[in-house]
Amino acid sequence: MSPSGALAYLDRHRARFLDELKEFVRFPTVSAQPRHGADLQRCASWLAAHLRGIGLHHVRVVNTKGHPLVYAESRPEPGKQTVLIYGHYDVQPPDPLHEWRSPPFEPVVSSGNLYGRGACDDKGQMFAHVKAIEAHLSEQRTLPVNVKCLFEGEEEIGSPNLAPFLRENRHALKAAVAVMSDMPMLGPGRPAITYSMRGGLSLELNVTGPDRDLHSGIFGGAVHNPLQALCEMIAKLHGPDGRVAIPGFYDRVRSWAPDERRYMAQTGPGDEKILKDAGAIRGWGESQYSLYERTTVRPALTVNGITGGYQGPGGKGVIPARAVAKLSVRLAPDQDPHEIERLFRLYVDRITPPAVRCKVRAAQAAKPALVSRQLPALRAAALAYQKGFGVPPVFLRSGGTIPVVNTFQELLGIPTVLMGFALPDDRMHAPNEKFHLSNFYNGIATSIWFLTATGTGPMPARGETEAQTVECQECSA
Amino acid sequence: MSPSGALAYLDRHRARFLDELKEFVRFPTVSAQPRHGADLQRCASWLAAHLRGIGLHHVRVVNTKGHPLVYAESRPEPGKQTVLIYGHYDVQPPDPLHEWRSPPFEPVVSSGNLYGRGACDDKGQMFAHVKAIEAHLSEQRTLPVNVKCLFEGEEEIGSPNLAPFLRENRHALKAAVAVMSDMPMLGPGRPAITYSMRGGLSLELNVTGPDRDLHSGIFGGAVHNPLQALCEMIAKLHGPDGRVAIPGFYDRVRSWAPDERRYMAQTGPGDEKILKDAGAIRGWGESQYSLYERTTVRPALTVNGITGGYQGPGGKGVIPARAVAKLSVRLAPDQDPHEIERLFRLYVDRITPPAVRCKVRAAQAAKPALVSRQLPALRAAALAYQKGFGVPPVFLRSGGTIPVVNTFQELLGIPTVLMGFALPDDRMHAPNEKFHLSNFYNGIATSIWFLTATGTGPMPARGETEAQTVECQECSA
Repeated sequence: MSPSGALAYLDRHRARFLDELKEFVRFPTVSAQPRHGADLQRCASWLAAHLRGIGLHHVRVVNTKGHPLVYAESRPEPGKQTVLIYGHYDVQPPDPLHEWRSPPFEPVVSSGNLYGRGACDDKGQMFAHVKAIEAHLSEQRTLPVNVKCLFEGEEEIGSPNLAPFLRENRHALKAAVAVMSDMPMLGPGRPAITYSMRGGLSLELNVTGPDRDLHSGIFGGAVHNPLQALCEMIAKLHGPDGRVAIPGFYDRVRSWAPDERRYMAQTGPGDEKILKDAGAIRGWGESQYSLYERTTVRPALTVNGITGGYQGPGGKGVIPARAVAKLSVRLAPDQDPHEIERLFRLYVDRITPPAVRCKVRAAQAAKPALVSRQLPALRAAALAYQKGFGVPPVFLRSGGTIPVVNTFQELLGIPTVLMGFALPDDRMHAPNEKFHLSNFYNGIATSIWFLTATGTGPMPARGETEAQTVECQECSA
Repeated sequence: MSPSGALAYLDRHRARFLDELKEFVRFPTVSAQPRHGADLQRCASWLAAHLRGIGLHHVRVVNTKGHPLVYAESRPEPGKQTVLIYGHYDVQPPDPLHEWRSPPFEPVVSSGNLYGRGACDDKGQMFAHVKAIEAHLSEQRTLPVNVKCLFEGEEEIGSPNLAPFLRENRHALKAAVAVMSDMPMLGPGRPAITYSMRGGLSLELNVTGPDRDLHSGIFGGAVHNPLQALCEMIAKLHGPDGRVAIPGFYDRVRSWAPDERRYMAQTGPGDEKILKDAGAIRGWGESQYSLYERTTVRPALTVNGITGGYQGPGGKGVIPARAVAKLSVRLAPDQDPHEIERLFRLYVDRITPPAVRCKVRAAQAAKPALVSRQLPALRAAALAYQKGFGVPPVFLRSGGTIPVVNTFQELLGIPTVLMGFALPDDRMHAPNEKFHLSNFYNGIATSIWFLTATGTGPMPARGETEAQTVECQECSA
């Protein structure tokens, strides 16, 4: 059954859909920055009103200890599959602000792209599903499947209040499968379904030395400098071969059979493509793996930021009293974030120079996630892409972390279909983030088809799903 | 001849002198920060008016390419020695602001100290000489010596416009000796005359990698991180023994005869004292030298600040496109800043990881300075301290850098008497800078005595001075 009515509706309403997305992007919903709390609240109310407006039911802004969730569902129809549509309306901090060519929260269209923080990650991608629901409902007053929409405001800070909500509402949230769009395709016109994500672990190193900032003339040479000590410690986190030097770090990293590596080499981006997307001259890291492998099936430890000493114009002759580094680890299957945190702490204790003290703080732990490429819902997604973009998708691994995929599996027992509509150069998390508008419209069409195909195709039973999502059948263990 | 009238005048006017110093400190004269340009201009005008008010002549605000100089002199009297009094009215940036217990430019008195940025470095110390001149002039309408006052507004940024001014005005600035107060004593009630300063060289490392900030999930593990690369480079600037690892760095560092090291051990602060002043648990650096030696006759390389990546609250999964470190080198005799810059650049080229680029910027170069302890003006200073503080001073080396000492020697051919009135814990360059008020008043008395003793005692001939200041007679070469 072709959803021709819904697709025609999409074609007639493109301009309005774009205007609405711009309205959505204008909310500065930076979840990491407490001063934006009210903006998240306002955005959640706007989104709830919007979902009510397109005909969804039981729309609620769910307050949490942090930023609110927005929930909505279609009027339940017996005998139809239920799809949980997940997205997030919070965004990354726009820093560094001066590198934006237009203000991050004043979306502008240029050369077929919508520029703005969140245009792509994740407001634009989640909005594609919202508009697909609208298109179905407006044309037929019904949907091919039952949908439950769950949009959170804390994804960029590790979803601290999502799991408690899922735990309390696991029966109300019962569904056969979850779907979300928060990741890149392989390139323009090259759709991809993500079947593997890395886990994540955020860490902070806080190094202190003398009890106040010191004059570097008067004390330089006699007192260890916490900022220098921090650099020495960070330098010891990797070996000269680019491997993480923490003992035991790779112990649980799964090695993959030649078949799977061959599949990855055939379907994934090549080294040149990744370097071009990164704007980098050359690769770095574990030389025995392709860059695609290094960013997906191999773990990575990244220094995300350092704060220490004088950062203003000119110079300042100071030995700073403290220095802080923000780090993140991307975990490959089967690393466990809590074990890695333990190994990290042990190693940091060992490499902390005796003249300074170092405190480690950990946050945002998420296990890696894998979905079987044989899952029927993934086949429905492949068909939808074929219809929405005109080409069949490839199956991709992503190096990013979407903790909810793991959370859905553990708390709701369902797999998640990861249908990315972003492009690799959309600058998610960076200045001048953008969303390619033809991907927005094709994404809506793809979601329209996905709901249709899921409503007609065979869906797995619950037990079957669970088994399939914890094992990747192509993979050696 | 005792300056009893001037000393009595000081006693009667203490409260007013303090009020005037607070007025002086209120100007936020941060020379490193362009937005404070007008504040420096206003402060210079205030200072000029003040110098006119106490009876000095030829008072001028001298505009430069940067912040203005303030010049004034006494009516020249034939047959009297001429003393050049130098100081600076600019201050260090007050960062980090949140660590101040009271606002840096709203001076407050607490427990016998004046708190505020510049209270000690150098407004309070230079103002002691201004008030000494006032005391002499008010009581006797004349001074024991001719004075020329030169107060600059760019000391904290390396005095870029002082040398051109000195060169153009070397005849007008003719003097037998210069005096300045911008350094610590050994402790409360323990005055010191500084006869040795380290040189200085400011450096900046600017590391760049990918052409924009990258998502650390999508690219982490495949692209070198400029912030990590910067840490790796900084870690290589020192060996595990705390010595600077730049080849050739120590080649010109003078070694000192056992006599001089014994003199330093007898007169200088012990390790415990230095650690207490620093608020540090233990020492660090070249273990074969005392901490006093490490901070004075040995060079030091300090990381003053690092900027890179995300520094806001929470986390941000980013590989930053660039990272910057501000460094400073304190040079020991006979290191040359330009040679050290050259060696630094060579070494940085060698240790820059291949996947990133690094640019070095250098600024603020100053040679180390030495004054003979036998110089008659130093003996006059010793007498003045004995009278002003009631105890004889010790002769100290300082680890700090006062480039003008070297500049005065090279351009005017005169030595500089370094009479510190600060305390080691006055937090020069750090939050909560303070000036001990009894040091302010004793400093004024000491300056009154210094002018008197210099006016009556024997002064060296010009040629003799020059020879004495370039050789330290107790030292092996």
